[in-house]
Amino acid sequence: MTFDGMWSAIEPIGHEASTGGYRRYAWSRVDASLREWFAAEATARGLDVVTDRAGNQWAWWGDPDASLAAGRSGVVIGSHLDSVPDGGAYDGPLGVVSALAVVDALRAKGFKPSRPIGVVNFVDEEGARFGIACAGSRLITGRLDADKARGLRDTAGVTMAEAMTAAGHDTADVGPDAETLRRVGTFVELHIEQGRGLVDLGRPVAVASVSWPHGRWRIELDGEAKHAGTTRLEDRKDPMLALAATVRGAGAAASVHGCVATVGKVRVEPNGVNAIPSRVTAWLDARGPGEAGVRAVVESVGRESGGVAVEESWTPETAFDPSLAQRLCGLLGDAPILATGAGHDAGVLAAAGLSTAMLFVRNPTGISHSPLEFAEREDCHRGVEALTLVTEELSR
Amino acid sequence: MTFDGMWSAIEPIGHEASTGGYRRYAWSRVDASLREWFAAEATARGLDVVTDRAGNQWAWWGDPDASLAAGRSGVVIGSHLDSVPDGGAYDGPLGVVSALAVVDALRAKGFKPSRPIGVVNFVDEEGARFGIACAGSRLITGRLDADKARGLRDTAGVTMAEAMTAAGHDTADVGPDAETLRRVGTFVELHIEQGRGLVDLGRPVAVASVSWPHGRWRIELDGEAKHAGTTRLEDRKDPMLALAATVRGAGAAASVHGCVATVGKVRVEPNGVNAIPSRVTAWLDARGPGEAGVRAVVESVGRESGGVAVEESWTPETAFDPSLAQRLCGLLGDAPILATGAGHDAGVLAAAGLSTAMLFVRNPTGISHSPLEFAEREDCHRGVEALTLVTEELSR
Repeated sequence: MTFDGMWSAIEPIGHEASTGGYRRYAWSRVDASLREWFAAEATARGLDVVTDRAGNQWAWWGDPDASLAAGRSGVVIGSHLDSVPDGGAYDGPLGVVSALAVVDALRAKGFKPSRPIGVVNFVDEEGARFGIACAGSRLITGRLDADKARGLRDTAGVTMAEAMTAAGHDTADVGPDAETLRRVGTFVELHIEQGRGLVDLGRPVAVASVSWPHGRWRIELDGEAKHAGTTRLEDRKDPMLALAATVRGAGAAASVHGCVATVGKVRVEPNGVNAIPSRVTAWLDARGPGEAGVRAVVESVGRESGGVAVEESWTPETAFDPSLAQRLCGLLGDAPILATGAGHDAGVLAAAGLSTAMLFVRNPTGISHSPLEFAEREDCHRGVEALTLVTEELSR
Repeated sequence: MTFDGMWSAIEPIGHEASTGGYRRYAWSRVDASLREWFAAEATARGLDVVTDRAGNQWAWWGDPDASLAAGRSGVVIGSHLDSVPDGGAYDGPLGVVSALAVVDALRAKGFKPSRPIGVVNFVDEEGARFGIACAGSRLITGRLDADKARGLRDTAGVTMAEAMTAAGHDTADVGPDAETLRRVGTFVELHIEQGRGLVDLGRPVAVASVSWPHGRWRIELDGEAKHAGTTRLEDRKDPMLALAATVRGAGAAASVHGCVATVGKVRVEPNGVNAIPSRVTAWLDARGPGEAGVRAVVESVGRESGGVAVEESWTPETAFDPSLAQRLCGLLGDAPILATGAGHDAGVLAAAGLSTAMLFVRNPTGISHSPLEFAEREDCHRGVEALTLVTEELSR
């Protein structure tokens, strides 16, 4: 099936008519449909599909273990199929569909790889359901503890272990997976750009340099629950005012330090129209080109809010393999090199010491994590061509 | 059973250990337990329990219809048993338990009423589950449309009609209930004070004058969902910033106009840590001693927020029966008269033309709608004594 055919096939899966966005959450029924689709496409191409200990799916052209015994590791391409809440169609799926299309393109030209080629579908990249991004790649690299992962709960109280079990995945084996990782000699993740770098440069495809350091912080703002109609303004301790200070402080501090900072998630208790909240919890996402700046933003926001910012996750700057990036740039007609503020499975694998690279495809609006996320079909095809060139070169 | 015994009996029902507050929502299992308890207490006293078309429970000492035929309407006392999310023990139950204790006190002294005495438990006063306060009294007075009520949904998507049916209440009959209302010659609702008026005056019991005009407004703040890590600050339309302006604007405008204003409920979409929200919805509760002031607050907040404030409910100032209030003050040793910022079923009945009054019992902290809501037991007993005096006088 062509790129366009595959794209049309998954377009309806997990689409939410009320918002126009996607709700493709890890280990859900929607996710199961996508995983079945992936396995069927791989099988139709004669690829061997194996699921690793975390639930990531790997489809192999060639036998990676036999090849390893002969001293040749695999070249892996792919991305993920899950989405943020009401996310777009491209973040993740573009990389998976492109990777399958690359296999078709290489075969169409009669290419015989001397290294095995793998297509991967990472599970739970967005962390939309259980709160930890890149859970699939973090688990197999040991960056996320298996017991911690199993115990994570979604908003309905379902644990990741329960969700995995319901989806038919054995949770006893969840954990670091050296057997899977050693098959990966090189990983190249193609992804829609999530900013306007390529638009500004007038180019369709870029190569990634680094992922900015980034983290998530939880800020608890305590108040006193009192009646909204009968409590004088001067007798209130209203945490919604502290939230206002937090939100304003985040924008101001990010601007000063050349970073980005976002309060995108809030929990209000009890969240009643006529009750002053007893507590507001705000989550701060902060990223930037250097750790010192990001840390300064968080410190400043904590001070403004009057609360304490508790670190929920921290990812240092991740450099993708610089010589690989240089090689890909040359191969792709001096493609531009861009840094990214987003985290990716490729970044997790790079941090674990694997040789990884990323290709970005132009996003005409720069919008991502939104129903408006978009790439021109022509640019998607240019992305497939670029990834085909790269895969051919690496596995020659 | 004594006041203290009844209080202990309902204390565990709907208590949430994790917060120390109560979750007694209309038409829930917890609510069913409270309604069963009420019916059993009434039956144990030989009162006739009837449920009206909206589901409010009325327990009659004497036959109200026979008495009406003889030209004498009833004297009704009581309140409600439901709560706001994680509310206190007193708001509502104090009035119901006190009313049952009044029946005991009148009988203990051998009193023979010449008007029937009713004890009422209004259903769904807080509107915590379906969003409309005083639903039980609004339905029987026609202030809330039956079809609209039946179609209201809780956060799980259950309609009020479905919840009523599950609780065994016939939804076909829901609507105005003149038969029930004509039995009510006078209604006196005893309630914990929700401010510090009585503390400041050093008195245990007050009589209500008016309920402030009050309303609820929904403010939609639209943004553009974009990736939190890759979208430059200058490319954002972040509705969380508009929320911050709304919250600050509400406090400032309320202060200027001598009102109170609260943003206690917020909905963030999609509410993901790494997504700039596509939309934030804020609910504004505003009240004050005059309509002009309240309207000015809402207009100012709408302007500050950059959104549009849509009125969800509006209740004009409600004066309780002034001659009745004067009579009760005299009876209670020149009790103070206080205005209230809260809405009550007594206010709904007053607006429908019934003669109603309210008694407030001292609240040492002024805190309400919170697990910290409290009244000294001694003051509760003083409240029962006051309500006994009043009921005796009115039904003599």
